[in-house]
Amino acid sequence: MNSILVVGSIGYDTISTPSGQRRDILGGSANYFSLAAAHYAPVRVVGVVGDDYKAEHRQMLESRNIDLRGLQQVPGKTFAWEGKYEKDMNEAQTLATHLNVFEKFHPVIPAEYRTSEFVFLANIDPVLQLQVLEQVKSPKFVGADTMNYWIHSKRPDLLKVLERIDVLLINESELRQLTGCWNTIQGVREVMKMGPKAVVIKRGEYGFVLFCEERYFILPAFPVENVVDPTGAGDTFAGGFLGRLAQHQKGWDREELKRACVDGCLLASFTVQDFGLESLRRVTPQHIQERLQAYRQVIA
Amino acid sequence: MNSILVVGSIGYDTISTPSGQRRDILGGSANYFSLAAAHYAPVRVVGVVGDDYKAEHRQMLESRNIDLRGLQQVPGKTFAWEGKYEKDMNEAQTLATHLNVFEKFHPVIPAEYRTSEFVFLANIDPVLQLQVLEQVKSPKFVGADTMNYWIHSKRPDLLKVLERIDVLLINESELRQLTGCWNTIQGVREVMKMGPKAVVIKRGEYGFVLFCEERYFILPAFPVENVVDPTGAGDTFAGGFLGRLAQHQKGWDREELKRACVDGCLLASFTVQDFGLESLRRVTPQHIQERLQAYRQVIA
Repeated sequence: MNSILVVGSIGYDTISTPSGQRRDILGGSANYFSLAAAHYAPVRVVGVVGDDYKAEHRQMLESRNIDLRGLQQVPGKTFAWEGKYEKDMNEAQTLATHLNVFEKFHPVIPAEYRTSEFVFLANIDPVLQLQVLEQVKSPKFVGADTMNYWIHSKRPDLLKVLERIDVLLINESELRQLTGCWNTIQGVREVMKMGPKAVVIKRGEYGFVLFCEERYFILPAFPVENVVDPTGAGDTFAGGFLGRLAQHQKGWDREELKRACVDGCLLASFTVQDFGLESLRRVTPQHIQERLQAYRQVIA
Repeated sequence: MNSILVVGSIGYDTISTPSGQRRDILGGSANYFSLAAAHYAPVRVVGVVGDDYKAEHRQMLESRNIDLRGLQQVPGKTFAWEGKYEKDMNEAQTLATHLNVFEKFHPVIPAEYRTSEFVFLANIDPVLQLQVLEQVKSPKFVGADTMNYWIHSKRPDLLKVLERIDVLLINESELRQLTGCWNTIQGVREVMKMGPKAVVIKRGEYGFVLFCEERYFILPAFPVENVVDPTGAGDTFAGGFLGRLAQHQKGWDREELKRACVDGCLLASFTVQDFGLESLRRVTPQHIQERLQAYRQVIA
């Protein structure tokens, strides 16, 4: 069975949305990714937390096919993010970011993780993403995310990352900043020239665009009526996406990538239905199956 | 064969986009609608132009299954709109609107139009939309569009219109203003309570949401790489949509509405590829067929 290595943030989030507020709830890209991907394949996490990290959170993750031996616990406080969504749930306002122990984080990939077949480089400094790639032994598949901050401030390093990955998963504002193209379809072609073999544009409620083998695959998201908190939807998408690929394939082809996008979409549709990881952690394989059936009704 | 009656604006547009600028080109909701719908069924236009309206424009439309006997020509200048698109082509900035002869327009439906089976009330004052409905004899199907200005300033009249139509076709910002819902899926349910039997939300490059018979149908737009001018895309969608329905059905059902949305999407994808009506007027049935094939590849 393929294993998935993810390197990303683990944090405590304080989130305000029109549905309410939560303080210091578990979040971070690595957690959304892992809880989604673990439905399909074993996940190995590399990241850092402080001494305020709660044992119950470690237990919750470890009980679900998620290996935390690569999670460094160091003195200090865990990364914390504070954000707010107004009525337009597509855009988070960041109120505060406390890097805390994340500031000095350098990924150390444990020996037993280095042969992981699938690797996901969540949205972290591209210099660290490159450090991860130096430490893993020829994975079958590497996916990566990034954000506007890195595109702006670490472009040369990011370009090196792009040359070494299979799929880049970003949103439309990141695509614009990376390529200068306001047209998503044009932008996708520009990203492809930077190295990845495929590109997935995450469009939130509008779904996704997959480009690979010279063709587009585009579908809407599952229609969610009760969006409570969109935080983590993109990382959940990535988890469903890589999870599905890792479960089904030695390598990957266009058909597998298409189906993986749909799984990413379905998992993300659960995440947004409650605060933080609350909804995602309750999802069962049965729920995913049911939602797939409902999704097929919507698009056919 | 079913005929389609459209009541809407005819105007001369001055448009600036990142691709260039055009002055005083033929536009208006009725023209985009008609050129799209005439691919499927005969179209009858009710509207008003001034004495500056060009004979070549009348000829161009009349040569294409479009009946202009209901087009009033009166002294004065034709309606004119000036707009600009920045890099984000999803939103037009209106620089100037000159109502001109449109200011005193009252729709008069010629006797030979009154038995039209399909009616489209383009985005005009809901008071005028009601006047149209008073003059037509029990059409099989009525579709309508509106805009934020009318939702705000003529809400009671608009609500009367909504009680009398089969399908409302609007965009997401109009949906928000009409219902107060920021979630599109929730908003659609609210609109349904106002009377229409179905709702189509036009999402521009993100496609459409159709709600009817208690179910959603959602698909993306055809991916267009060279968006030159998005003006008229929504009216073109409506034309392809009603055209298709008029061509195929005495009444209509969910399957017909679904296919009609796809046709609306395909026609709109041509409109945006050149300024004004330039691309749409060059479209052939062969082009539509080819684009349908290409679209099926994108979503499957």
